[in-house]
Amino acid sequence: MLKQKRLRDYGVNIGQMKIGKQNAITDVAGVTVGHITLSKDEVQTGVTAILPHQGNLFREKLIAASFVINGFGKTMGTIQINELGTLETPILLTNTLSIGTAADALIDYMLERTPEIGHTTGTVNPVVAECNDMVLNAIRKKVITKKHVLAALEQAATEFTEGSFGAGTGMLCYSLKGGIGTASRLIELDYGTYTLGVLVLANFGQLGDLKINGQPVGHVLQHHIKSTDQEKDKGSIIMTVATDLPVTQSQLQRIIKRTVTGLARTGATLTNGSGEIAIGFSTATKIPHEATAHVLHSPSIPEGDIDIAFRAVGEATEEAILNALITAHSIIGRDGNERPALKDLIETHPLSLGPRASLSP
Amino acid sequence: MLKQKRLRDYGVNIGQMKIGKQNAITDVAGVTVGHITLSKDEVQTGVTAILPHQGNLFREKLIAASFVINGFGKTMGTIQINELGTLETPILLTNTLSIGTAADALIDYMLERTPEIGHTTGTVNPVVAECNDMVLNAIRKKVITKKHVLAALEQAATEFTEGSFGAGTGMLCYSLKGGIGTASRLIELDYGTYTLGVLVLANFGQLGDLKINGQPVGHVLQHHIKSTDQEKDKGSIIMTVATDLPVTQSQLQRIIKRTVTGLARTGATLTNGSGEIAIGFSTATKIPHEATAHVLHSPSIPEGDIDIAFRAVGEATEEAILNALITAHSIIGRDGNERPALKDLIETHPLSLGPRASLSP
Amino acid sequence: MLKQKRLRDYGVNIGQMKIGKQNAITDVAGVTVGHITLSKDEVQTGVTAILPHQGNLFREKLIAASFVINGFGKTMGTIQINELGTLETPILLTNTLSIGTAADALIDYMLERTPEIGHTTGTVNPVVAECNDMVLNAIRKKVITKKHVLAALEQAATEFTEGSFGAGTGMLCYSLKGGIGTASRLIELDYGTYTLGVLVLANFGQLGDLKINGQPVGHVLQHHIKSTDQEKDKGSIIMTVATDLPVTQSQLQRIIKRTVTGLARTGATLTNGSGEIAIGFSTATKIPHEATAHVLHSPSIPEGDIDIAFRAVGEATEEAILNALITAHSIIGRDGNERPALKDLIETHPLSLGPRASLSP
Amino acid sequence: MLKQKRLRDYGVNIGQMKIGKQNAITDVAGVTVGHITLSKDEVQTGVTAILPHQGNLFREKLIAASFVINGFGKTMGTIQINELGTLETPILLTNTLSIGTAADALIDYMLERTPEIGHTTGTVNPVVAECNDMVLNAIRKKVITKKHVLAALEQAATEFTEGSFGAGTGMLCYSLKGGIGTASRLIELDYGTYTLGVLVLANFGQLGDLKINGQPVGHVLQHHIKSTDQEKDKGSIIMTVATDLPVTQSQLQRIIKRTVTGLARTGATLTNGSGEIAIGFSTATKIPHEATAHVLHSPSIPEGDIDIAFRAVGEATEEAILNALITAHSIIGRDGNERPALKDLIETHPLSLGPRASLSP
Repeated sequence: MLKQKRLRDYGVNIGQMKIGKQNAITDVAGVTVGHITLSKDEVQTGVTAILPHQGNLFREKLIAASFVINGFGKTMGTIQINELGTLETPILLTNTLSIGTAADALIDYMLERTPEIGHTTGTVNPVVAECNDMVLNAIRKKVITKKHVLAALEQAATEFTEGSFGAGTGMLCYSLKGGIGTASRLIELDYGTYTLGVLVLANFGQLGDLKINGQPVGHVLQHHIKSTDQEKDKGSIIMTVATDLPVTQSQLQRIIKRTVTGLARTGATLTNGSGEIAIGFSTATKIPHEATAHVLHSPSIPEGDIDIAFRAVGEATEEAILNALITAHSIIGRDGNERPALKDLIETHPLSLGPRASLSP
Repeated sequence: MLKQKRLRDYGVNIGQMKIGKQNAITDVAGVTVGHITLSKDEVQTGVTAILPHQGNLFREKLIAASFVINGFGKTMGTIQINELGTLETPILLTNTLSIGTAADALIDYMLERTPEIGHTTGTVNPVVAECNDMVLNAIRKKVITKKHVLAALEQAATEFTEGSFGAGTGMLCYSLKGGIGTASRLIELDYGTYTLGVLVLANFGQLGDLKINGQPVGHVLQHHIKSTDQEKDKGSIIMTVATDLPVTQSQLQRIIKRTVTGLARTGATLTNGSGEIAIGFSTATKIPHEATAHVLHSPSIPEGDIDIAFRAVGEATEEAILNALITAHSIIGRDGNERPALKDLIETHPLSLGPRASLSP
Repeated sequence: MLKQKRLRDYGVNIGQMKIGKQNAITDVAGVTVGHITLSKDEVQTGVTAILPHQGNLFREKLIAASFVINGFGKTMGTIQINELGTLETPILLTNTLSIGTAADALIDYMLERTPEIGHTTGTVNPVVAECNDMVLNAIRKKVITKKHVLAALEQAATEFTEGSFGAGTGMLCYSLKGGIGTASRLIELDYGTYTLGVLVLANFGQLGDLKINGQPVGHVLQHHIKSTDQEKDKGSIIMTVATDLPVTQSQLQRIIKRTVTGLARTGATLTNGSGEIAIGFSTATKIPHEATAHVLHSPSIPEGDIDIAFRAVGEATEEAILNALITAHSIIGRDGNERPALKDLIETHPLSLGPRASLSP
Repeated sequence: MLKQKRLRDYGVNIGQMKIGKQNAITDVAGVTVGHITLSKDEVQTGVTAILPHQGNLFREKLIAASFVINGFGKTMGTIQINELGTLETPILLTNTLSIGTAADALIDYMLERTPEIGHTTGTVNPVVAECNDMVLNAIRKKVITKKHVLAALEQAATEFTEGSFGAGTGMLCYSLKGGIGTASRLIELDYGTYTLGVLVLANFGQLGDLKINGQPVGHVLQHHIKSTDQEKDKGSIIMTVATDLPVTQSQLQRIIKRTVTGLARTGATLTNGSGEIAIGFSTATKIPHEATAHVLHSPSIPEGDIDIAFRAVGEATEEAILNALITAHSIIGRDGNERPALKDLIETHPLSLGPRASLSP
């Protein structure tokens, strides 16, 4: 990605599977990601847009699914995803109080590109997810405008920054600076090699719980930051999963449900105040908006092959969260609030992060 | 079917769609139904078996779904149906306290026919649903044996009786005698004509609520039976849906959820004590137990064509319930309890059942 | 209510239970409803606001639940309702493409009244539901502004209009003019009399299916309107349920799920394109936002008493839908599209609406 | 417990919370556990019974919930638990093909103690869960009889064995010998100290994934057992949660959903073939079977206090699984199949199990 030092650059590899070319959600062909970052004084927020493919999603929908791990959140658009199993807009991430604006802008974006919506065919289902960045960001100011949202959509590219950018600008994670992180895995099957990528907006957790590759790093670090900053979890995490694996809606939902394994392995206890939501799509099949007058034959893997995708999504989620943590830079925001960046902490206090189980000879 | 006088024989047609050849669940090719009936004094119970196809269901599974309208019930096997979207055994219906016996017998039945189960491959998921026939049947006696269950499976045929037979022997419906009922509809699409059939085990409701084709028949009839017999609803209804329409699991679940429209139109208020559960399968695709090493291409209809299946399942469910009521014969059972048969009531008190909305000229 | 001729004024009574004073959702003490109506030429839309109580809902939340009958819809806020079981804002209804604007306005409304949101406590979960009024309304114009939304909230009162007002302005129902309708029922228990009210935004169905009190009115009427206007269902229905019955979240969800019985009895087949969503709240218990440091003892009815609430919600939903139909006035909107009003049709073609089942002597 | 060497005896402590007196599910007052163990040659199976309280559960029900993490399983009774939120029988664990027998025996057990069931009141909902022990046990033989089941119920006590006993006799876990494990945590709130206990039937996973307290023990150990024995996961895990914390059904379901955090931290990827199901109950409130004629006031904690229960259930689940592994003794069963016991492996190859993250000074 864009020259940021990521988890693997510190010698820490999560899991056992091969990673994609960039180790990013954009390793799934067609997927792009764009950020708008507003970072000045008490304004520390932004928008991140995920474009699942580069055509018109309303006209060529993708199979999609969502799974609510903890529903303390305001994500919109998932009711229809779960009913129809399709995604028809890009996915937006932003702060909690900007979801209305983001939804409205996404509607405009789709209307402009699709004159038939609300004219000769039905309406459109905008998908917007959020986390609460109020510790660092003056969220009540609601500075995000429709222009910002449209700009995030326009700027989407295959390379993008992680950490304190876009919707991740003001987010915290395990009492440290959090934000956007990504990772990917290759799924090697007899009949082809596929890619699964995860992008997280990570804004949850308390420092004492943080585990890196199973090691209780948070426990060690917690004596190095102010205890008053290890506040009760009011965060959330949005986990977006992209894949080119051919799957049914039911299979996709089973896959994205397994994001929870990676999430738990970073130490999450899935607290009351932390909305944890997974949204996934497969680019393997484009479903035309206009009905065809014949039986469809959508491709899907045999259910017996799904374990490798379960493993992939767990590994990629775990690594994406840790990438969000390790790439984030410290931000001083609202009321002078600040959360340390993990990369700064471990520079002054080098960590041994490798796993250490061993057998005596 | 077997020479019983059914709803249409009284001149009452439900809905607007065409019916299958027999107007029964067995109009779906491959489906057979078998009963064992135990009807003597205080023993008024039985077993009904539905065979979705005539091969080995474990080796050639069908796409399946279930939907719980009201979960006051002991149906088993639906967790796996919902997770994997497949059915791998026949479906058994019996009385509530015999589900253990029925499950055990169904396991034996599958083991005998499938030596690899529990030997070289995994186990099997028996599907058993139930209603409580304790008003007419001495249910605590638990007279159903594994032999009865196996006999019901063996006797399955394309023609079968409705009303007070099989699992329906001791059931009540709308304070009248209830039991087994069935109906079917043809689904005509540009690319083919398909069949959807419903079989119900109807054991719910209070007389005052009964509507036949929208007419408040129960309200009229309730003055003709003892009010003490219009007891609080402790019943249930199991609605089994078969179709040869090619569908995904998600589509099938959407379809069987619409059984509730037909159920509600007969007057049901979905009471607390009435477990209402729908289980459905499609015979359009046989899914081999052994994984194939390639991508599958299962057929499914475009989502835009699904409305006709929604209408079909509502109509067939409504008519199946009314067929259960109109075909049932009166039973004197436990403690001399008796519930009148609808066919007897309307013989002595002829009903005008046709709808009557009309426009003045 | 406000001098409109309602279903009961035509001599048609739905069900057997007693109605509240106004036969409206506002019979539940504390509930008010406000409309903004934009009705001129091709602009035929509006906003309806439901205020569950007259205090600050964020600070004093209500037990709430939602149930998705068919998820082809863009309703927002239900994920959190289902997780936490509480409602913390008024409920807004509007057209599909205005949900972003409505959500944003509702956030502003809450922020203004609750300075602690996003400052010393967490954020707020706006609840907005929608139907698609594109046949009569130039929905792509997105004329609803935040001012309109705030005005609807401000104008909320215990009396309000039904039919073609507020969010109902441009809605269709069973190919006729639809919109807002309401009804209520009294729930008489040994330990008190409670009220349950329903307000619907009705925008679904095809004329041929319409049943009024079980009578196939739509079948009769369909020869009196242009067949081209009996379009494929692209509608939706939002059913809001208010009660002062003390219930747990689980009980409330069971209750609102039964809206489907009333809906089905009007003839609905729950088509693919019709998003059917129920949202309910109980005013019996106010849950403080700030945690109390002790065990709570929220009141709830025994599960065995819930049947009367199931019956109430079914009856009230059926009547609310029919009230929406019978009160709506005809609108000429986008592209000169027009749908007849039921009240006009039956004036020229008087209908016999009473049920007609009868016993021969 | 009964003199077995458990995880803490090896110096490994999971999490940060205090444990109950026995570190077992039976630390929750009233809960007892009984085993029947059949272990001879190719018969390696059994039954484990969990009694939630020592009275008649049908007459005094407990608030209960269930959550399906992965539904590849045959657990029965959860539909009614989820609908009504109550448990009315003990919980049985056994092998997959014995669920029918177990259910039938449990019905008999309840009928004998409760003459009113099926006589003057409704029926009873038996709760039976299972895992597949076919690697070590000749499961097709179906040796479990009703007598065995009743004996397990009779023998229930507050002390019980872990590992290869009861339903755990023939189970595998992470390619090693698995079975029954338990652990508990104290929940300290301002208004009282409560206990939460977990009992697992652990029969899932592949060795390479096993983590003990975050350390990749399985990765190290996998070179010490035959690779052919690290078979594809066909297992399952049943996680039973008991607590005396006062909770609503919704709260309890949120709590038991968090079993997945502990499960994931042991390395689980939640494979396709592994049915993962959680069932929980709270002993804080006994709900009488016969309806009371007044409003109930069941106690529950404020939602804001629930995080400590989320943490407790994660910690206890993780430790219960590891206790199952570390206490199990090796079994030679069907076809001479054998899986090593973790305690034997680490005796010959001592493991350093402590976490090792550290900061340089």
